[in-house]
Amino acid sequence: MNQPVSGRKPVRTLAWEDGALHLIDQRRLPREFETVTCRTAEEVAAAIRSMVVRGAPAIGAAAAYGIVLGAREAAEGADDFRAEMARIAGRLRSARPTAVNLSWAVDRMMRVIDACPHMSPAALADRLLEEAHAIAAEDAATCRKIGAHGAALVEPGGVMTHCNTGALATVDYGTALGVIRAAWSRGTPLRVYACETRPFLQGARLTAWELLQEDIPVTLITDNMAAHVMHRGLVRSVIVGADRITANGDVVNKIGTYGLAILAREHGIPFYVAAPVSTLDLSLEHGGQVPIEERAASEVTHIAGQPIAPEGVDVLNPAFDVTPARYVTAIITEHGVVRPPYEEGLARLVNRLDEQGADIA
Amino acid sequence: MNQPVSGRKPVRTLAWEDGALHLIDQRRLPREFETVTCRTAEEVAAAIRSMVVRGAPAIGAAAAYGIVLGAREAAEGADDFRAEMARIAGRLRSARPTAVNLSWAVDRMMRVIDACPHMSPAALADRLLEEAHAIAAEDAATCRKIGAHGAALVEPGGVMTHCNTGALATVDYGTALGVIRAAWSRGTPLRVYACETRPFLQGARLTAWELLQEDIPVTLITDNMAAHVMHRGLVRSVIVGADRITANGDVVNKIGTYGLAILAREHGIPFYVAAPVSTLDLSLEHGGQVPIEERAASEVTHIAGQPIAPEGVDVLNPAFDVTPARYVTAIITEHGVVRPPYEEGLARLVNRLDEQGADIA
Repeated sequence: MNQPVSGRKPVRTLAWEDGALHLIDQRRLPREFETVTCRTAEEVAAAIRSMVVRGAPAIGAAAAYGIVLGAREAAEGADDFRAEMARIAGRLRSARPTAVNLSWAVDRMMRVIDACPHMSPAALADRLLEEAHAIAAEDAATCRKIGAHGAALVEPGGVMTHCNTGALATVDYGTALGVIRAAWSRGTPLRVYACETRPFLQGARLTAWELLQEDIPVTLITDNMAAHVMHRGLVRSVIVGADRITANGDVVNKIGTYGLAILAREHGIPFYVAAPVSTLDLSLEHGGQVPIEERAASEVTHIAGQPIAPEGVDVLNPAFDVTPARYVTAIITEHGVVRPPYEEGLARLVNRLDEQGADIA
Repeated sequence: MNQPVSGRKPVRTLAWEDGALHLIDQRRLPREFETVTCRTAEEVAAAIRSMVVRGAPAIGAAAAYGIVLGAREAAEGADDFRAEMARIAGRLRSARPTAVNLSWAVDRMMRVIDACPHMSPAALADRLLEEAHAIAAEDAATCRKIGAHGAALVEPGGVMTHCNTGALATVDYGTALGVIRAAWSRGTPLRVYACETRPFLQGARLTAWELLQEDIPVTLITDNMAAHVMHRGLVRSVIVGADRITANGDVVNKIGTYGLAILAREHGIPFYVAAPVSTLDLSLEHGGQVPIEERAASEVTHIAGQPIAPEGVDVLNPAFDVTPARYVTAIITEHGVVRPPYEEGLARLVNRLDEQGADIA
């Protein structure tokens, strides 16, 4: 699926091999290329928490395989398989609170168990592996459809993005970066302005690296250069991903997204959000209802293990922010582009899919 | 002047001792406390270029002592003292192009030479040392006056600042941070939100450190958290420094300032600029005419010597940006607070000072 990392051997954000989930350790890229092997559901939850794997669609797919590993453990050892699976599902769902794709994937896996009340635990574990493979395969296909729908929106010239929404944030190809890939492969002349995305530096470490691998022109900037780069006329569009989109079109995404959206509007630049339908959470009215994960202070005060701030300083480290729908020009999904008013557009999209019995749960 | 760093021995951003200029090496703070000793004008220029010393007022004062060191060298060795001094002045002026305080201080020193056409080089070197001491002493006094004028503008609660505009950016006390110090010392309850200020991390390394030394409450955030923190209602005012202010009130300051100004306006938060009159450059109509220094890519791609981006990635690294005057609520100088329209207000301020033969050149 993904592009080769070494040029020798193709590797994937996540891969199921020999009964284990193998994850690229994204904390170490691009300096080192290492994989982490998860043989238990708890190891998958820990990998999601510690951001070995990150990106809303990728953590959804990883959690699906976590359910498979949990089912294999429970099939061998648990007194009450279904109760144990409910516990494991809870552990995985709570590994990170903000992205809805995580609970979406866990819920979809648990519905397989609910749908087969008489199946043996061992047989269920096999059925769950099929479902996890389906989630992974659908994610890769979904990203390509998002890319196809969004490509025409990307104007020739500079396109700014935030965080990493590429192959490393998904099973393959990417959401916002998928749109950029699709536009580039159609021959749209582009230069990507990648915001480094403090504190975890996904833009510098992952987005810049992915784009360099494919020879898509990329310029790395610090987050606070965005306004200046827009003012210089270098940016024709901004495109980001999402961790959760509420019924009114509010977008919860990596910290810094909200600021970029304000800056884009101030400079008359369209601001697009690319995400699969699994990122929609129409059960919530607005973004203020989404729990915002607060992460460890050390992510801000240390970089690559080196302290960059005085010891003991107070720190805020919200991992996400909320971009009100009014700043969002359009939301690009695998089923088409939704424009304001989002209440109607998103509800119509989901209702149509429910009626069609589409491939979303 | 400055607060003690070690609690044992008082130290200063810059100090003249034993015929040399001693500078705190600001690249190493807060991890290590080291001083750099400059014994030649060229060493001072190098220290300014490499950001051993930074902050517009501080580099102005450092350059003044650079002229003294140059004069001592030229008095001993040069065939044509005045021609050699003109060359040295050029070297110092061009060490960093954006902040006008640097050329302001060099010009003021060179006027001493022009004013004494018959003085011997050795006597001139002594006279120049007096002038450098005067510049340093005036800077410290100026900062306290800026603080006194600005303190009443700082609302109780959260105050956001960018970069370092404190004792380390000046000879002592600071400009924007001087206003915050003055408000705090009057008993205004405050919490400072310090933006870390990539790429050089002056906020994380220097501002947080200065405020911790004085027990002023400080919360460190990454630059891209500013909009989110404003949206949460944590910020009552934003106050920054300046490297150059043009006749129309455009403010050239550390990269990221322009974005903060847009975000402040979007959230209805006043945006203040604190700077000495030596930062005004009324010879330029607007900020677009100010040269913006572009610094090395390695400042973005490496932190504390560690690579954080893939090798060979293209980088932008403008050290400053331009905040159009329309985003600036008021400019706080040592001679009072100027509000829009700035053309009139700034011109009136400078004309009044010229008429009074005030202490600015």
